[in-house]
Amino acid sequence: MTEEKNWHTHRDAKNARLASASSLLNGKFAKTKDVVEVLNALIKPGDKVVLEGDNQKQASFLSEALTKVDPERVHDLHMIMSSISRPEHLDIFDLGIASKMDFSFAGPQSTRVSQMIADGTMTVGDIHTYLELFGRLFIDLIPNVVLVAADKVDHEGNLYTGFNTEETPTIVEAAAFHDGIVIVQANEVVDKLPRVDIPSDWVDIVIPADKPYQLEPLFTRDPQAITELQILMGMMAIKGIYAKHHVQTLNHGVGFNTSAIELLLPTYGEQLGLKGKICRNWELNPTPTLIPAIESGWVQSVHSFGGEVGMEKYIAARPDIFFVGKDGTMRSNRALGQVAGQYALDMFVGSTLQIDQWGNSSTVTNGRLSGFGGAPNMGSNPTGRRHSTPAWQSLKPDDDPLAKGQKLVVQMVETFGSNKKPVFVDHLDAEKVRKEAKLANVPIMIYSEDTTHIVTEEGIAYLYKTDSMEEKKAAIEAIAGVTPVGLRSNPKEVKRLREKGIVALPEDLGVRREDAKRSLLAAQTMDDLVEWSHGLYNPPAKFRSWS
Amino acid sequence: MTEEKNWHTHRDAKNARLASASSLLNGKFAKTKDVVEVLNALIKPGDKVVLEGDNQKQASFLSEALTKVDPERVHDLHMIMSSISRPEHLDIFDLGIASKMDFSFAGPQSTRVSQMIADGTMTVGDIHTYLELFGRLFIDLIPNVVLVAADKVDHEGNLYTGFNTEETPTIVEAAAFHDGIVIVQANEVVDKLPRVDIPSDWVDIVIPADKPYQLEPLFTRDPQAITELQILMGMMAIKGIYAKHHVQTLNHGVGFNTSAIELLLPTYGEQLGLKGKICRNWELNPTPTLIPAIESGWVQSVHSFGGEVGMEKYIAARPDIFFVGKDGTMRSNRALGQVAGQYALDMFVGSTLQIDQWGNSSTVTNGRLSGFGGAPNMGSNPTGRRHSTPAWQSLKPDDDPLAKGQKLVVQMVETFGSNKKPVFVDHLDAEKVRKEAKLANVPIMIYSEDTTHIVTEEGIAYLYKTDSMEEKKAAIEAIAGVTPVGLRSNPKEVKRLREKGIVALPEDLGVRREDAKRSLLAAQTMDDLVEWSHGLYNPPAKFRSWS
Repeated sequence: MTEEKNWHTHRDAKNARLASASSLLNGKFAKTKDVVEVLNALIKPGDKVVLEGDNQKQASFLSEALTKVDPERVHDLHMIMSSISRPEHLDIFDLGIASKMDFSFAGPQSTRVSQMIADGTMTVGDIHTYLELFGRLFIDLIPNVVLVAADKVDHEGNLYTGFNTEETPTIVEAAAFHDGIVIVQANEVVDKLPRVDIPSDWVDIVIPADKPYQLEPLFTRDPQAITELQILMGMMAIKGIYAKHHVQTLNHGVGFNTSAIELLLPTYGEQLGLKGKICRNWELNPTPTLIPAIESGWVQSVHSFGGEVGMEKYIAARPDIFFVGKDGTMRSNRALGQVAGQYALDMFVGSTLQIDQWGNSSTVTNGRLSGFGGAPNMGSNPTGRRHSTPAWQSLKPDDDPLAKGQKLVVQMVETFGSNKKPVFVDHLDAEKVRKEAKLANVPIMIYSEDTTHIVTEEGIAYLYKTDSMEEKKAAIEAIAGVTPVGLRSNPKEVKRLREKGIVALPEDLGVRREDAKRSLLAAQTMDDLVEWSHGLYNPPAKFRSWS
Repeated sequence: MTEEKNWHTHRDAKNARLASASSLLNGKFAKTKDVVEVLNALIKPGDKVVLEGDNQKQASFLSEALTKVDPERVHDLHMIMSSISRPEHLDIFDLGIASKMDFSFAGPQSTRVSQMIADGTMTVGDIHTYLELFGRLFIDLIPNVVLVAADKVDHEGNLYTGFNTEETPTIVEAAAFHDGIVIVQANEVVDKLPRVDIPSDWVDIVIPADKPYQLEPLFTRDPQAITELQILMGMMAIKGIYAKHHVQTLNHGVGFNTSAIELLLPTYGEQLGLKGKICRNWELNPTPTLIPAIESGWVQSVHSFGGEVGMEKYIAARPDIFFVGKDGTMRSNRALGQVAGQYALDMFVGSTLQIDQWGNSSTVTNGRLSGFGGAPNMGSNPTGRRHSTPAWQSLKPDDDPLAKGQKLVVQMVETFGSNKKPVFVDHLDAEKVRKEAKLANVPIMIYSEDTTHIVTEEGIAYLYKTDSMEEKKAAIEAIAGVTPVGLRSNPKEVKRLREKGIVALPEDLGVRREDAKRSLLAAQTMDDLVEWSHGLYNPPAKFRSWS
């Protein structure tokens, strides 16, 4: 019970750092050219630093500046990042500025992450699904400094993040209310914001950026690249899963398989009389391939984790569907979107690079420590869920009076990947990567226990209906084609599984392979999507074949 | 592809409603006396209405006004409420104003909820854990109107929710960005807010309340009421669970069992040399019984779902521990707190009213449909979790190379409840309630599959170590005392379970019953807590025995 103890050491440290930078500051504002000096003054060795690398939006001005700080002054940083996306996110490890990393996703940098772990340049705290990383910001990874990006800032330091709000408010909240330092790069300083997304009270430093933050159209898929095999799988999924289970609320992962489904709803789905019965409420980034389904009246609502380049005007013109503010621009929110994606959806449909003989899947392959993003969260059965929907309830086992429903977690894969390698393997590469990267557990993206269905070009395996691991393995073999796993399948067992409704081939579902034509897609080109949108969708240059 | 379709029907409806109330409004502000007329004008039949009944904070001015609207104009509302706490939350059903309810918790009103379902006055959508209800606000329960409470509002309509932010920002976000109407009662209108918690752009209507919102000190437990049996259980838990598994991040449910543990850390925990090794980071409301552990240096951080009456000054003086803004006041956040509670903690410790022979537990008992609050969320094993901690990893099965760790979910109960009824029962009352309330599934709070430990005055059952349901049942029987379930236990089996480490009696843990004395509590009275706090804790009147 000593009275003398200082209970505001964080606040003192923050004030001292801000004081040491005071010559560089005019109120909350620093000059663009002073960014490196500001970081030199405000970041200390060993700090936990959240650098905003969202799925799409990148605090690229601040990440570039971070590579230029003085490693004598700023070193051994513990970086916390949703997404390792840009080269400088790793350059800071080569430069001795950072030493430890906790992250969720490393798609574009996954090879280099593996190498840096192997050669000891980087220590990995752990790999996370987005939501657990956000949670830890309030528990055992409370940040000292956060570096985030905003579209516009007013003279008081209020922030407008608009369309691409993503996780910025969540990151900022963790620091602002624990005497961390909130540093914001802004595309633009304006007199009056369209709206306030983050109040200035939560912000310490604003630095106008030399150019707008990097923004990638990660969720845009060109319908031209959708194959007839993907259309076949989409037809099977719509009939054998979406319709069968009355799926009303859902998320689609990124990929051509799910884009095909989105483009089949207004054609094949309509033929099946499913409009208004399935796919009504979505947690999904504003993917352009959903436009025809929206325009055809299939979709009641879409809440989004983030924005998607080119969809701004279309969304602004469809406020009944999207979450749009009074200012006419969407608000996204990755933390709340992932909460909804975990707890409020009937179904998650994803894809993967490998599935093992037991049904575990991973995108971590040899030499690539890619992380997972939101898949483990949305692709898991939240056992805390207590509300029931027809789809969820349809997976309830009928032999236990205390049982409850289950989320549909669907993996859609072709049996061989685009690299011609088999997707179905006896052992995941992740088992080997675990040892190399010294991880506590095998980096599995979605576990067998959570996976309820697998769809391939061969058919659908209803894994939730199997009553033993042996039966589950046989169901996977039945749809694994000519992969080593699939070659173990035997016709008698497949017949038995089809009779039990555990495996369905296209003919069992009444889906004819010869009907799986590209002409069945509601849009076959980017141009078609623009037309469906009444010219409101504005594809990024790299997706435009016209001038 | 019809151009004529109106894609902003929600916005039109909102504008029309606001226009119809315009004579009652001065900008965003309405007069206190006009509240009922404002609600009559802005709410329409069948609306989805979120009425803020938080765990502690109640939008009591608005809920009282809602009972006075004209049922000819406003009827068949679909209410969405975290907590059914006040009589008028149900009066609106008797009055024909509301007809359907989706909720999480109904502790104080649970008997009446049961009656209203039985007599058809209320239809229940479903019972939720908090986080799934929040998620649904963005998917399939998007609100038309939200009625929330703020401490202070400025003349632009910016809100200060301070200490008791709780879920207000989450509710407001769901409505503000989908053309719902955001109506706020404010304790006070001021020129300058201490800080902005919710920007005015998100707010439509502000009504100064006739008196401050209701606020209940729900998490305050008087140490005087802690029994020696609870102290014994606390000692067992500290040694047999907290220390054994190196629990560093945790949540405690509400109850005297966990208050006892909080008060044993600076005494018994210190004797065991555990300081700094366990219980460092908490997701917890600011419970007064944690003060001695904080003052003794056990606690590194506490993030909170909500505030706790009387703790304001203490928290403000301990910003290194709590989440405190620049203004010196705590910010709470139930949505982010529940995310952290689910994904970022080693352990959840709760209590319950009944546990069945298989280990399922519920607080729903005959005639009381109480709901669950946050327990199903924090008391479940999030299978999407991918990061590892020593405690989580200590529950990893050792016979599967692909296995991962598990969250510790601990139930602490005395074998007989305060009503002298057995806590351990063959069948939960919830099974019967399911039929009466026509629920899709049995309202189980925490499932057997998620429960890793049960602690009673008899001992600890390490359920996660059992390898069959038969063994699990025997382990539960071994610690169920003289309840009907416990009487089935046989000494040979108990001996076997003790040898396997599946059951531990106090003597197995080296805990002596005669040491379990009240003198071992770091604080034995409310006065002691005030003293530990250096006079900063200010207990509510009902907890004060002195003047």
